Amino acid sequence: MTINNIADLKPIKLRMVMVETSHPGNIGAAARALKNMCLTELVLVNPHDFPSATATARAAGADTVLQNARVVQSLPEAVAGCTLVVGTTARTRDFEWPIWSPREAAESIVAHATENVECAIVFGRESSGLTNEELESCNGYVSIPANPEYSSLNIAAAMQVLAYEVLQARLVTDTASSKITPRENPLATADELDAFYQHFEQALRHTGFYDPENPRYLMRRMRRIFNEAAVDNRELAMLRGICTSILDLPESPYAKK
Amino acid sequence: MTINNIADLKPIKLRMVMVETSHPGNIGAAARALKNMCLTELVLVNPHDFPSATATARAAGADTVLQNARVVQSLPEAVAGCTLVVGTTARTRDFEWPIWSPREAAESIVAHATENVECAIVFGRESSGLTNEELESCNGYVSIPANPEYSSLNIAAAMQVLAYEVLQARLVTDTASSKITPRENPLATADELDAFYQHFEQALRHTGFYDPENPRYLMRRMRRIFNEAAVDNRELAMLRGICTSILDLPESPYAKK
Repeated sequence: MTINNIADLKPIKLRMVMVETSHPGNIGAAARALKNMCLTELVLVNPHDFPSATATARAAGADTVLQNARVVQSLPEAVAGCTLVVGTTARTRDFEWPIWSPREAAESIVAHATENVECAIVFGRESSGLTNEELESCNGYVSIPANPEYSSLNIAAAMQVLAYEVLQARLVTDTASSKITPRENPLATADELDAFYQHFEQALRHTGFYDPENPRYLMRRMRRIFNEAAVDNRELAMLRGICTSILDLPESPYAKK
Repeated sequence: MTINNIADLKPIKLRMVMVETSHPGNIGAAARALKNMCLTELVLVNPHDFPSATATARAAGADTVLQNARVVQSLPEAVAGCTLVVGTTARTRDFEWPIWSPREAAESIVAHATENVECAIVFGRESSGLTNEELESCNGYVSIPANPEYSSLNIAAAMQVLAYEVLQARLVTDTASSKITPRENPLATADELDAFYQHFEQALRHTGFYDPENPRYLMRRMRRIFNEAAVDNRELAMLRGICTSILDLPESPYAKK
């Protein structure tokens, strides 16, 4: 499995997003890993120290990836327009959503990308990973199987593994392995889904079912369901219509503001 | 594919050998990658600077791997007693021997290891890799597919990829890829789901959104979403609660009976 020409690879629109990275050396090492694995798009959410000579030194020739890196202020900004947003986590035990292996995540991403949609893989802080809120804004999850007694990979090493699996998946040119059946309508993007969740929460307050003082994981569960279902834009329009039709009814006396 | 206990893994005797590494930071990063991937045995052939505070800092908690690293003067000494010695190379074009992909190499190593023989993977210098003579002393070869215009991975990144594939190969014995992590609550049964769909349809008629005369595939689409999401019984109870809270509101004037 040799690559003779990058142009022969299955095309892909994939952003690698690093959230609040502390050490510029990790950003440089990540840039190198991406370029080695035929990826180019790096997005940095509030990096602590960037641009930095340390990052450039560690990038060792992948400085174009660093120069073209987009620096943004928030995760939603980083993933705007992406349909599949895969969050990385080392916490697999108490995690409520299905978690892909790196190989499964890469296969999903490459299968999605053939429909010409943008994807992102999101990497958290060196010390603490992604927050629960950040994870909830993702609609796919990946964890790198690791030593249970020492499970936290260096962030650039984690990017190396995922970028490697994405390249592997792109090299499998025959379509036999594509698990995702093609969808008639384009999938809803992450920001469209977020707007729906806000609308849905408003409708559930209106009926009195959702009490923000006593949330009982309600919205988190609902997000799990709709994220998992890979809702397309026609279905999303129906769901938004349902929310509107609920909000058109008189408000429940039990509704909490 | 979660690892609960290293002791449950298929056992393996695998030495990771680094030849004349220049930068101690790479040795530290390699130690971390090995420990993350449930490996422990590191052999250093003539390292330029070791032990080193830089290596220890980058090892970040994998210092036991560094402390137990064996420092030797020659490659034959490093691989003495090994049956399968796999050399890493980025030169794939003019190479005379068959070259494994990382996955194939890992599978061979894990297959050999079950016969209780020792294996080694050998990594060359940062600048120039392994010499021809060193490569000739190996009896297996591996190359990580990479960008033809930028093919040289950082040495610790290369070790991360190979250690990752070795762990994957060791895990394969357990379960064939399990996409779904075990769910906390039992999944809803087909008849429970059917009862929910009836309840949901009733709620959507109540808001006036669902018109049985003009169904527009609404219920079919909703079934697709909730079937795809693999709803558990706690989530189903929430969804039923939402339907009830809608039906408790005054009926829409647009509701069709």
